[in-house]
Amino acid sequence: MSDLIEKVKSEIIPQKKEEKEIKEIADKILKKAENEVPEGVEVMLVGSVAKGTFLVDVDIDIFLKFPIDIDLKKEGLDVARRIISNGEEMYASHPYLRGEIEGKFVDIVPCYNIDNVKDLKSAVDRTPFHTEYVKKEMNGMENEIRLTKQFMKGIGAYGASSSVGGFSGYLIEILVIEKNGFEGFIKWLSECKCPLIIHTIGENKHRDIMVMEDPVDSKRNVAASVTVDVLSVAILAAKTFLKNESRSYFFPNHKEKEECGKMTIINLNRPNMDDESALSWLRSEARKIIRNLEDFKIISCEVKINKKATIIIESEIIKRSDKIKHIGPEPWKEGAVDFLVKYPNTSIFEGKMVIAKNPRFETIENAIQDLIPEAEVKSKEIMPKKLPWL
Amino acid sequence: MSDLIEKVKSEIIPQKKEEKEIKEIADKILKKAENEVPEGVEVMLVGSVAKGTFLVDVDIDIFLKFPIDIDLKKEGLDVARRIISNGEEMYASHPYLRGEIEGKFVDIVPCYNIDNVKDLKSAVDRTPFHTEYVKKEMNGMENEIRLTKQFMKGIGAYGASSSVGGFSGYLIEILVIEKNGFEGFIKWLSECKCPLIIHTIGENKHRDIMVMEDPVDSKRNVAASVTVDVLSVAILAAKTFLKNESRSYFFPNHKEKEECGKMTIINLNRPNMDDESALSWLRSEARKIIRNLEDFKIISCEVKINKKATIIIESEIIKRSDKIKHIGPEPWKEGAVDFLVKYPNTSIFEGKMVIAKNPRFETIENAIQDLIPEAEVKSKEIMPKKLPWL
Repeated sequence: MSDLIEKVKSEIIPQKKEEKEIKEIADKILKKAENEVPEGVEVMLVGSVAKGTFLVDVDIDIFLKFPIDIDLKKEGLDVARRIISNGEEMYASHPYLRGEIEGKFVDIVPCYNIDNVKDLKSAVDRTPFHTEYVKKEMNGMENEIRLTKQFMKGIGAYGASSSVGGFSGYLIEILVIEKNGFEGFIKWLSECKCPLIIHTIGENKHRDIMVMEDPVDSKRNVAASVTVDVLSVAILAAKTFLKNESRSYFFPNHKEKEECGKMTIINLNRPNMDDESALSWLRSEARKIIRNLEDFKIISCEVKINKKATIIIESEIIKRSDKIKHIGPEPWKEGAVDFLVKYPNTSIFEGKMVIAKNPRFETIENAIQDLIPEAEVKSKEIMPKKLPWL
Repeated sequence: MSDLIEKVKSEIIPQKKEEKEIKEIADKILKKAENEVPEGVEVMLVGSVAKGTFLVDVDIDIFLKFPIDIDLKKEGLDVARRIISNGEEMYASHPYLRGEIEGKFVDIVPCYNIDNVKDLKSAVDRTPFHTEYVKKEMNGMENEIRLTKQFMKGIGAYGASSSVGGFSGYLIEILVIEKNGFEGFIKWLSECKCPLIIHTIGENKHRDIMVMEDPVDSKRNVAASVTVDVLSVAILAAKTFLKNESRSYFFPNHKEKEECGKMTIINLNRPNMDDESALSWLRSEARKIIRNLEDFKIISCEVKINKKATIIIESEIIKRSDKIKHIGPEPWKEGAVDFLVKYPNTSIFEGKMVIAKNPRFETIENAIQDLIPEAEVKSKEIMPKKLPWL
């Protein structure tokens, strides 16, 4: 193990004192929960605290396993509120409560108590199985997992939420276990390519770029959250890390680029949704816009959700020529005569009909405004960020 | 036959008086030639006057058929000069003399007298066979050929010289004979497409866009002179003529375009060559330039030989963005790591490495000047011409 890795480990593995503190908080809430839940409801510590794979800025996840005949949305949430009365209502596939206790975020998540993952009623019902699986298979790999999570976090690839589009903690855990540690994981990752189909699961109808069986549920793609850009970044980071390892992969610099294309900022009204849904919506808006901006040669695109919904586009061109090249059919193809009638200034060049005509939209602003009339579009002199470790 | 066709025919078919005049000039030169040539040299009227397919602005072609053991360049030209003493020395595949007699151009061309076209020593030796073939096969089609020649001339597709890159008179003659007149020719042409391989002759190693056996020499492509752009124009003209016939196909307007791209004029020193060779050279220079100007989106290109050698380029762009999009390898491909080392401002976008960098040449002038340092390059506000019949 290199000095660098040793040093990083020493920074990210919680100290004995911190670990004790977190476990004490968890125990306290667990006890409170066990007192509050009705007969027949099971309380379970899950996630990275249960597995001992947490980083310093950990969340404590406690699941309340209800019998399958109750209404989680009502009764489940009512019980959760008895445990953290000031908890904020959140939503994954079912509602849950998030509160802060002694400086730590605590999630109280009602789910169904099922014996077999095949009887799943809600996506969160799987989590207890994940926790059990990792605890059973981990075999002393806790700190290798922590190191890998820190690496993935540093390069921007840790997190299954829409805002990251990366690897869930659980996905990292099962990969590190399978690859026998951080080094094995990085070597494996550096040799991956997109699409990364580790197992075939059905027809992959969502066209996930990474497909891997969930060990506790073989019909589920445990890597469905991973986007092509995050997987690309992760592969590239693994390759370059192997060539020249550095602290900046774990603790990124987030430097600004020294040169970039033209920047355009699109502000939209944020729809009345939670962050996850708003981000999904915004990404699909961004894709729609980008599909229509081919002529402006998009270099990169970023989306952000806060009070506004913002799309930041870097492009080669923000203003096109006033006359653009438009290629018509070959003169012997159907439509050639009609093309000439429509464009009497046609030239024949290299066997094709070619015309210089006004572009439909001369500026990127106009092209965007035409797609989304209510958007607020402006060009701006800002510098996007480099890849995190550079 | 439509009124239009009748009217055009009446304008282009020489009047009895004109025809008589031309034949008298030809006879006079023939007689003079027969008096001047040494024993064993045959004099022959060839070309459109011999065939009776000439238009008003006809050239008179007289061939001197020498025995195959003499030096055409010396002796051949000496004899020709006795016939037109003030003739200018020209060059096709062998030298010949061009003079003006009573307002008509007269070409005196020394060639070899061969019995079989297979014994050909020079390309011009074929011409007498062409004349004989057409005279034999024509079957009263003289005026249909004249009409077709005028059409092809009008649309800029008549002439096998480099400056046109079109159909030779002989090629038009054999096609009109085969298609049984102007109308049949136009219908056939309107259904053609590029490449137009009527017969297969060997491997077509020059990649001729139109290939057709010469009826008197089955190994020769009689359409080798036709360029892709001229064939394209001809096909398009035939299609549109059938939809809406008009006088302007025969007597073109040569109107300026109403809108066009950005115009760039490149002046080169004309090399010390005849027009044909200079044009071939200039076309190859133009191709070289255009191949390197892809980023400026070329719309059309024209070349001209006079005192200077001039290339006129119409393009969408004459000045590029100061930062252009450059796509690198996919992160899992070879070279990805090196690309990132070279371009630390790389983004990952849609699974590819992308960078905004300075273009090698920001202006079309610089790009051209780099290829041909001695070129004189300027942007100019000129309007190129429309297709001739528009």
